[in-house]
Amino acid sequence: MNKVFADLPVTIFEAMSQAARDNNAINLGQGFPDDPGPEDIRRAAADASINGYNQYPSMMGIPELRQAIASHYGHWHGLKLDPMTEVMVTSGGTEALTSSILSVVEPGDEVVCFQPVYDSYLPIIRQAGGIPRLLRLEPPEWRLSEEMLRSVFNHKTKAVLFNNPLNPAAVVYPREDLELLARFCQEFDVVAICDEVWEHVVFDGREHIPLITIPGMRDRTIKVGSAGKIFSLTGWKIGFVCAAPQLLRVAAKVHQFLTFTTAPNLQAAVAYGLGKPDDYFLDMRKDMARSRDRLTRGLESIGFPVLKSQGTYFLTVDLSPLGLNETDAEFCWRIVQDYKVAAIPVSAFYEQDAVTSVVRFCFAKKDSTLDAALERLSDAV
Amino acid sequence: MNKVFADLPVTIFEAMSQAARDNNAINLGQGFPDDPGPEDIRRAAADASINGYNQYPSMMGIPELRQAIASHYGHWHGLKLDPMTEVMVTSGGTEALTSSILSVVEPGDEVVCFQPVYDSYLPIIRQAGGIPRLLRLEPPEWRLSEEMLRSVFNHKTKAVLFNNPLNPAAVVYPREDLELLARFCQEFDVVAICDEVWEHVVFDGREHIPLITIPGMRDRTIKVGSAGKIFSLTGWKIGFVCAAPQLLRVAAKVHQFLTFTTAPNLQAAVAYGLGKPDDYFLDMRKDMARSRDRLTRGLESIGFPVLKSQGTYFLTVDLSPLGLNETDAEFCWRIVQDYKVAAIPVSAFYEQDAVTSVVRFCFAKKDSTLDAALERLSDAV
Ligand SMILES: CSCCC(=O)C(=O)O
Ligand SMILES: CSCCC(=O)C(=O)O
Repeated sequence: MNKVFADLPVTIFEAMSQAARDNNAINLGQGFPDDPGPEDIRRAAADASINGYNQYPSMMGIPELRQAIASHYGHWHGLKLDPMTEVMVTSGGTEALTSSILSVVEPGDEVVCFQPVYDSYLPIIRQAGGIPRLLRLEPPEWRLSEEMLRSVFNHKTKAVLFNNPLNPAAVVYPREDLELLARFCQEFDVVAICDEVWEHVVFDGREHIPLITIPGMRDRTIKVGSAGKIFSLTGWKIGFVCAAPQLLRVAAKVHQFLTFTTAPNLQAAVAYGLGKPDDYFLDMRKDMARSRDRLTRGLESIGFPVLKSQGTYFLTVDLSPLGLNETDAEFCWRIVQDYKVAAIPVSAFYEQDAVTSVVRFCFAKKDSTLDAALERLSDAV
Repeated sequence: MNKVFADLPVTIFEAMSQAARDNNAINLGQGFPDDPGPEDIRRAAADASINGYNQYPSMMGIPELRQAIASHYGHWHGLKLDPMTEVMVTSGGTEALTSSILSVVEPGDEVVCFQPVYDSYLPIIRQAGGIPRLLRLEPPEWRLSEEMLRSVFNHKTKAVLFNNPLNPAAVVYPREDLELLARFCQEFDVVAICDEVWEHVVFDGREHIPLITIPGMRDRTIKVGSAGKIFSLTGWKIGFVCAAPQLLRVAAKVHQFLTFTTAPNLQAAVAYGLGKPDDYFLDMRKDMARSRDRLTRGLESIGFPVLKSQGTYFLTVDLSPLGLNETDAEFCWRIVQDYKVAAIPVSAFYEQDAVTSVVRFCFAKKDSTLDAALERLSDAV
């Protein structure tokens, strides 16, 4: 069997969700909402299942959705995309990332990744024969630095994978960091693969800035998005890849042999959703921020030091001041059993030199779910 | 960019469907029905979109669907599968094949493939660093032979990819050929990856025999199926992988980084569909066979020599007796423009030493569509 995959553990999200089921725990681990998702979008999917098209759509995605994606980014970010040559629909953000990585990386290429790193990146880079060059971001700020980038970028660097907003750290990167990264990409002629699946989940009036909009990056950035995250319908697995034609053309060749295409009834519903007025997205952000604040206040009142969350479904807690004498992973495996609350250890996002004192909680839940979890955790510290 | 993918053509199915749209042609190329698919299954999807679960399901598929797949194969083939450790749901048959290939093949491994070969196999084998060893099947029988297998199987052979029923040749392999292949797999300790997406689309009382049920093959076969093909809902992209736990375990690790999981609302509808009574499947076969017969008679009356079709949505025509002085590809590109009917050249399924005189037509269409296509082709010979 293929050694790249044979010895990998089951992803921490799946493992912890399983532990939650096994322990009858409240699942604040894997990032998904506990409400059913927007009813009108689900009705649009139902309607397309009955009255719409359910056979093979175009490999690149149904034209209405490609157009809706282009219009959406045009409206929100002034990004001009040609829907026919610069937009592709994939079976989820994961497939979008994998198609992008496999289209760029060849044996011997170096690929810069930032830890905490999402767990699909490294195995796929290695499957492509690439060599990950890992950088280490640290709490509480998780910012990029010039020395950091200088230490890894070189003439063998083919690509950088960059996740913004950053899961699990809940950072929304400011323009300054993006410009720094853009400078290195240009100096070393590097393709940026940008995992921006959390782009709409940003708080307190913060703006997500797509790396592709930074000067000099338009033709060297592959932008990955996810309808599942934008609309809190995580099961639907509809992702997007946006890139200049010469980049997208190759990603499409990978896509055609990973999944070929994606359910057109769900695509039609997402096209409908992307056309919603700005207030829909702004209200979603406000609702999420309210949930973040509710969980933050609750955890703080129990005695957990909560780090700030600028975006994503997540907040993190730094265990180090608590003197618990256990790692984040030990803590998570203990609380899922003893307190019946599942969370994700941030060390799972590091392959080397892990930060081992930070735990991630998902707040994309009903108030009653958050309150019940807080109740259970009330004497955990 | 990655050379394995960068220079690949767009898949012939997509290219020909695009040509059909551009020429306003009747599309008998890509394999999909022109009816909307079973209404009750589409209603089940609609219902699950509104009342069911639309967030991340289990990575391996929803338990109801895994159970339904195991029960279905138990009922139809006496194949006993443990739904928890031997069944995985993927985002379509293509992903099922790609996950299977990447789980088994490592750099330097030889992989036996039969031409005509489905177009995703070779690029993915090469991406894995594997070396395809191509055999050549020929019309009108397209059968396997001992010499053929003897010429390629050796101690470096890691896997064989076998498609049965065979697209585009429309052959349903008899037990004799399966036993021959099984003998070589055992002699050389080879894993068989079996693309059986057409398993239910078999005619004239013929029975599809899954290779995994041939003695000695249970623990060395990865069986791939497709709900899109079984239920004529080709856009839904719900596939299955069934294999012994030690094989499935690794395929699941690939799957978790290709797509992670598949829309649970569509999975629920497929679970419902797999529970239909035998008559549903037998009636579908009869309907398809009627369409096959209608297109066969029509093409024959125009003067096309039609080869026999034992299964799949396809029949093939052998151009060689017609003395047309053009290849199958030239013929197809000509008729889509001049006669406004799209078909697929079988040479597109060969990488070397192509059979260039056979053309594939899809008959999974309404009578009126078939009749209109025949009308257009009436003076094509
Ligand atoms: C694909 S499961 C992981 C979902 C997610 O983004 C997270 O929980 O971090
Ligand atoms: C994935 S598009 C190809 C569909 C098909 O199986 C065929 O037309 O052969």
